Amino acid sequence: MPLTDYYDLLLPAIEKEMKACVEESQGEGLEELYSMLAYHLGWEGPRSGQKAQGKRVRPMMVLLSNAAAGGDWEIALPAAAAVELVHNFSLIHDDIQDNSPLRRGRKTVWKKWNIPQAINAGDSMFALAHIALKRLAKQVPDAIALEAYRILPEACLTLTQGQYLDLSYENRTNLSSEDYWPMINGKTATLIAACTQLGALIAGANSETVENYRKFGEYVGLAFQVYDDILGIWGDAEITGKSIESDLVEGKKSLPVLFALEKIPSFSERWNNGPIAIEEVPKISTMLESEGVLEFANTTADNLTQKALSILEQTSEISDSRDALQDMAKKLIKRQA
Amino acid sequence: MPLTDYYDLLLPAIEKEMKACVEESQGEGLEELYSMLAYHLGWEGPRSGQKAQGKRVRPMMVLLSNAAAGGDWEIALPAAAAVELVHNFSLIHDDIQDNSPLRRGRKTVWKKWNIPQAINAGDSMFALAHIALKRLAKQVPDAIALEAYRILPEACLTLTQGQYLDLSYENRTNLSSEDYWPMINGKTATLIAACTQLGALIAGANSETVENYRKFGEYVGLAFQVYDDILGIWGDAEITGKSIESDLVEGKKSLPVLFALEKIPSFSERWNNGPIAIEEVPKISTMLESEGVLEFANTTADNLTQKALSILEQTSEISDSRDALQDMAKKLIKRQA
Repeated sequence: MPLTDYYDLLLPAIEKEMKACVEESQGEGLEELYSMLAYHLGWEGPRSGQKAQGKRVRPMMVLLSNAAAGGDWEIALPAAAAVELVHNFSLIHDDIQDNSPLRRGRKTVWKKWNIPQAINAGDSMFALAHIALKRLAKQVPDAIALEAYRILPEACLTLTQGQYLDLSYENRTNLSSEDYWPMINGKTATLIAACTQLGALIAGANSETVENYRKFGEYVGLAFQVYDDILGIWGDAEITGKSIESDLVEGKKSLPVLFALEKIPSFSERWNNGPIAIEEVPKISTMLESEGVLEFANTTADNLTQKALSILEQTSEISDSRDALQDMAKKLIKRQA
Repeated sequence: MPLTDYYDLLLPAIEKEMKACVEESQGEGLEELYSMLAYHLGWEGPRSGQKAQGKRVRPMMVLLSNAAAGGDWEIALPAAAAVELVHNFSLIHDDIQDNSPLRRGRKTVWKKWNIPQAINAGDSMFALAHIALKRLAKQVPDAIALEAYRILPEACLTLTQGQYLDLSYENRTNLSSEDYWPMINGKTATLIAACTQLGALIAGANSETVENYRKFGEYVGLAFQVYDDILGIWGDAEITGKSIESDLVEGKKSLPVLFALEKIPSFSERWNNGPIAIEEVPKISTMLESEGVLEFANTTADNLTQKALSILEQTSEISDSRDALQDMAKKLIKRQA
């Protein structure tokens, strides 16, 4: 069964599980709070639907890892819902922290309601993510449920540590590429690692295999983020849906930028001199490319991808679901949008 | 052993357990994030110490309930830390939502750092609260650990539901005393109910006893809030540390106010006409008293207190720890500050 068929099979099941979980928050007089969550998750409001829901990458990684490790993916659905709720709680809060008015072309929760309610809606979703595991606990041995209850909040803590670093870097001028890894490990890689780890755990894999799945997810997450950073500077705006200059103009502390700050004094001087204007972008991105920054970033991402894929090959027996997982990892990393 | 001796014994153990848990968030480059948490918890920064730490009411309720139900309170310490971390995560976010610059006479986290970092610090503490239960899981049977993992996020969800109602009431003019109970049930009573429930659960009590402890905590929480509302209007400013007029001036939707909005048309008209000025307060509070609002609130609080105490008497054998728990509940409810 190819990846597209897995998508057709798993996506509706993921939405159904998430809805069953989020509906636990419903109650008399609480309709509006539920609406905030349902709106953010793409189920309600203007332009709701698949595009507003996002790609559900993380729950897909849970379920495919589970199947590849020999599990019955339906059992893993509550964990899939849990990680996607964690991801979305962090997006609701991110949008406030970044002062972003739009997400996936729609108003963000804080913009549609207000900041106090959006903070609280994120907190609600955080709680619901942990509540989701109750449904897992009913279907797996106690030791596995307890391990899942351990993994989820640890991933959340690391997520907040990455977010702390990202926020704190805004006021620092002495950053280097070393500062990059703990930030994206927290912001991106840890939650994807938790997905593949939970998938294998719930399949009943031994601890060495579970750890290998975790590492696989971690490398996928890191590679994913590095390619995302490359696209943020050299991507095709029509494909990415972003303005190609946005990452330089927005001052994003991406790997190419941090590497260039360390290696290219003229770039460092310009960067620390204030925001880059749109007009400067073509010249700066061309300069960065000619100085080898693009090549460095591509090599870094390729190495991470290779590590991810070789761990998976060593860990997992050949199967349809392993092929689909591999395919998904490749597409995710090299995605065009 | 009287309650004061229990305080001397338990408080240092609670702080130690919380520190052991929060220290899990430490790491290279993360010192400032840890400082935000340690500052809010009263461990670091200007005027740190017992006053800045607050009364640790919730963890005390966990441990005394545990002991009264026949448990070894040291085993329940991780749960005590967990509920106190939940309480404090909600305070960090509350202070942003209410735009409060001060808490316990010190700058709030958002005021000392900034709003994005304070949202994130609260999220970190939310994650740590759940991580705290990992230490419980090592010491109790799996079934009890799983039940604790179920109870904690459910209480968090209800907390956010109460907070949603509180925030949403700010823009409503058609409130009545019926709207009060779901709000304070979520904001105050549910977490105290979770404390007494967790205490009895970890003591190994049967499910009926655990449920009775939960109800005991719920009534304590409700009574506590109603008395707090009474003090907010008729309390002695020198004792409460607040300006006596603050609740009326601040427009707080307390039980006396909601009852008066329902029963006294002249008050309702005045309330909906814009903020009450400090000069109006003596006249309005005297009018509310003469219309029976104070008596109603006192009777309500006394009834809730009686319910709490009679449940505890029926549920728990006579013991030093039960006496201390009873004493603590009475002091908490009728507290002067």
